[in-house]
Amino acid sequence: MDIVASPPERSRPRPHAIASPVPRLLALGVIGPGRIGGALLDQLRAARTRLASQAGLALELRGIATRSRMWLDCDDPQLDQRNGAQTWRPADLDVFAAHVRGAQGMAMLVDCSASEAVTDRYAGWLAAGIHVVTPNKLAGSGPLARWQAIRAAAAAGASRWRYEATVCAGLPVIQTLRDLLDTGDILHAVEGMFSGTLAWLCSRYDATGPFSALLREAHAQGYTEPDPREDLSGTDVARKLVILAREAGWPLSLEDVEVESLVPPALAALPADAFLERLGRGELAELDAPLAERLARTRQAGCVLRHVASLDAHGRATVRLQALPAHHPFVHVRLTDNVVQLRTARYCDNPLIVQGPGAGPQVTAGGVFADMLRIAEIQGALA
Amino acid sequence: MDIVASPPERSRPRPHAIASPVPRLLALGVIGPGRIGGALLDQLRAARTRLASQAGLALELRGIATRSRMWLDCDDPQLDQRNGAQTWRPADLDVFAAHVRGAQGMAMLVDCSASEAVTDRYAGWLAAGIHVVTPNKLAGSGPLARWQAIRAAAAAGASRWRYEATVCAGLPVIQTLRDLLDTGDILHAVEGMFSGTLAWLCSRYDATGPFSALLREAHAQGYTEPDPREDLSGTDVARKLVILAREAGWPLSLEDVEVESLVPPALAALPADAFLERLGRGELAELDAPLAERLARTRQAGCVLRHVASLDAHGRATVRLQALPAHHPFVHVRLTDNVVQLRTARYCDNPLIVQGPGAGPQVTAGGVFADMLRIAEIQGALA
Ligand SMILES: NC(=O)c1ccc[n+]([C@@H]2O[C@H](COP(=O)([O-])OP(=O)(O)OC[C@H]3O[C@@H](n4cnc5c(N)ncnc54)[C@H](OP(=O)(O)O)[C@@H]3O)[C@@H](O)[C@H]2O)c1
Ligand SMILES: NC(=O)c1ccc[n+]([C@@H]2O[C@H](COP(=O)([O-])OP(=O)(O)OC[C@H]3O[C@@H](n4cnc5c(N)ncnc54)[C@H](OP(=O)(O)O)[C@@H]3O)[C@@H](O)[C@H]2O)c1
Repeated sequence: MDIVASPPERSRPRPHAIASPVPRLLALGVIGPGRIGGALLDQLRAARTRLASQAGLALELRGIATRSRMWLDCDDPQLDQRNGAQTWRPADLDVFAAHVRGAQGMAMLVDCSASEAVTDRYAGWLAAGIHVVTPNKLAGSGPLARWQAIRAAAAAGASRWRYEATVCAGLPVIQTLRDLLDTGDILHAVEGMFSGTLAWLCSRYDATGPFSALLREAHAQGYTEPDPREDLSGTDVARKLVILAREAGWPLSLEDVEVESLVPPALAALPADAFLERLGRGELAELDAPLAERLARTRQAGCVLRHVASLDAHGRATVRLQALPAHHPFVHVRLTDNVVQLRTARYCDNPLIVQGPGAGPQVTAGGVFADMLRIAEIQGALA
Repeated sequence: MDIVASPPERSRPRPHAIASPVPRLLALGVIGPGRIGGALLDQLRAARTRLASQAGLALELRGIATRSRMWLDCDDPQLDQRNGAQTWRPADLDVFAAHVRGAQGMAMLVDCSASEAVTDRYAGWLAAGIHVVTPNKLAGSGPLARWQAIRAAAAAGASRWRYEATVCAGLPVIQTLRDLLDTGDILHAVEGMFSGTLAWLCSRYDATGPFSALLREAHAQGYTEPDPREDLSGTDVARKLVILAREAGWPLSLEDVEVESLVPPALAALPADAFLERLGRGELAELDAPLAERLARTRQAGCVLRHVASLDAHGRATVRLQALPAHHPFVHVRLTDNVVQLRTARYCDNPLIVQGPGAGPQVTAGGVFADMLRIAEIQGALA
């Protein structure tokens, strides 16, 4: 067999060899066409023909909504003929959901916003038979009562809620934990580095310059949030840990996580522009001095400083700087990568480790898309 | 909230909060109650009550078959009353399958053998509406025509074939690759260390003693196959690579993989007992000399020797010793762990990495069990 001469499409996905005669319809609404939502729309467009012909799944994009506007019937062929010119109207999520649900077949809303207002509607949508998929961490890590209502709404009917991309984007973390627990394994600990930004800062930080100089560099290169204190506070990491803890059966909330913020109170109190101005001038001794001292102590102990989230067997959740021995696997993780380590009754000596880029539009949208296909498959809509 | 005082079962799986009123039946037949099959039967037994009450799935073990015998109706309560005393009869896989299929509800056969005779029946079982789950690599890496017939039988009907545990046991490898391809990502390369034994041998091998002394140690500790040449030949690793290549759309067979065997022809020709006898006496210069030379060259180049399987973007598959730079992630993998690294259009700078124990009864059975639940879920039988 002449492998090298094989046509390139042989390496392309062929999920299922024989299509079902009539493709099943999946009516979609995408909320938040920002970085992730935009990448998802591109991926959906690229996959559409293949999914219809090879997997018997017809994706129909019924609407796109931002905070203020919404477009309905994005797939209307008439609109395509008018060169994609579409009319928008003021956003109304109820009208939006009803429009998506109004189509034949399965209906699914994909929330790519970071909005509480959208999250508040999940339970209602699920109860109305609409599947919900999201990379938005607010439902998974927000008020426990809302989370429980969402779970109950999904469990009561046939509609599903999936959110793999909320933790480490496209890396298989939540499903892997779910599979272990569902098959009867017992969780001993989850440990991870869930912030590419903090991983980068920690691994670049040596004694040669102040921490804030690195922070300024990361900010200038776009590695941080617009206000880098959001990264340093550890809140986003804590949200991911709450999502995993709840998945493992611990009814934790953000307040239950012991978070060590790298931002001293005096700096936390500053308005954003004042903080950024001081960052630009290199005047952040309140931040730099304690970290320099910490690094010195860590090195004295022959260790390396890393920002680690962990959940133990008693449901205790912490997010903090840790001094790790030089041979610890987290020390060798590539710059900006995320890593998650699951220790269970089955994986007790050596843990199960998943590692790689944990943010970015393409990988995050890919994680969302995989969740969408998983639901279509569960609903019998993938040949 | 008092997290520490929470009852231990809060950390146990609760896959789905509300059970469906009438549990759906999954009739099971387990073929090959050896190390993996035995561990699976234990896991199924432990999970049964929970799955019925919390996930609405009633597992019914209808039969167990070995090469020579079979037991039918293992779950018959009457048998339980007689202290589990069960009668067996001579194995007949057709009778066995018909008995499992005869129950109401979904039927599934789990092949935990390493038998070609069992593999030959997959297509027929799938065509008859029986799902097939297996850790047995023979179907995935054996004759291409048989593999295609199995895929076609699964695609033609509603029955499914899953085999996650064939590559790295319980680690999420095949599903992760599948998700990337199904959502339109493009595979650039798969690289991995798929043999815990070879990983152990490579990372322990330094210039202080002959390679065969390490091999003897590994053999004595039960880390190797009974005939350790099976590990050294690289064939088992090549099988896993073929499974991944086919998953990625390359119609490869074992013959297409360039495998570098560590066993020189003179030693490959020996009968097993003669080889083991020479291993015991430490008389394996044919093996040791070339490896010592290889290690010296590798070290001169500042590199480290590892046993690596790889598939490139053109479908070229190789299994061989490689000299890796000291900072390569494979160099830091824990002793006996497996590791897989996926490079794709989305994961192009930093790859997606999955790592951990890739063999052993508990983790392998867990991978098989997760596949079983995935099929039950797709069939609408998990609440
Ligand atoms: N970026 C990553 O790498 C990454 C990784 C994992 C998870 N996530 C999560 O993915 C989500 C999206 O991230 P992103 O980076 O794509 O953010 P983004 O670029 O800021 O996009 C957010 C989108 O949401 C829309 N939006 C905001 N509030 C809305 C509302 N009430 N109703 C409808 N639409 C609303 C915004 O529209 P307007 O323009 O009208 O405000 C915008 O289109 C966030 O939850 C984030 O945490 C991101
Ligand atoms: N061990 C691992 O860590 C691991 C990891 C991944 C995948 N696997 C795969 O899992 C499978 C099982 O491995 P194992 O370690 O459990 O092997 P094992 O302990 O040797 O068990 C094999 C079982 O298969 C039965 N069997 C053999 N031929 C049969 C036939 N024609 N019909 C019915 N039953 C038959 C054997 O029964 P008899 O006693 O009658 O021969 C025995 O019960 C293999 O395919 C292996 O490659 C193993």
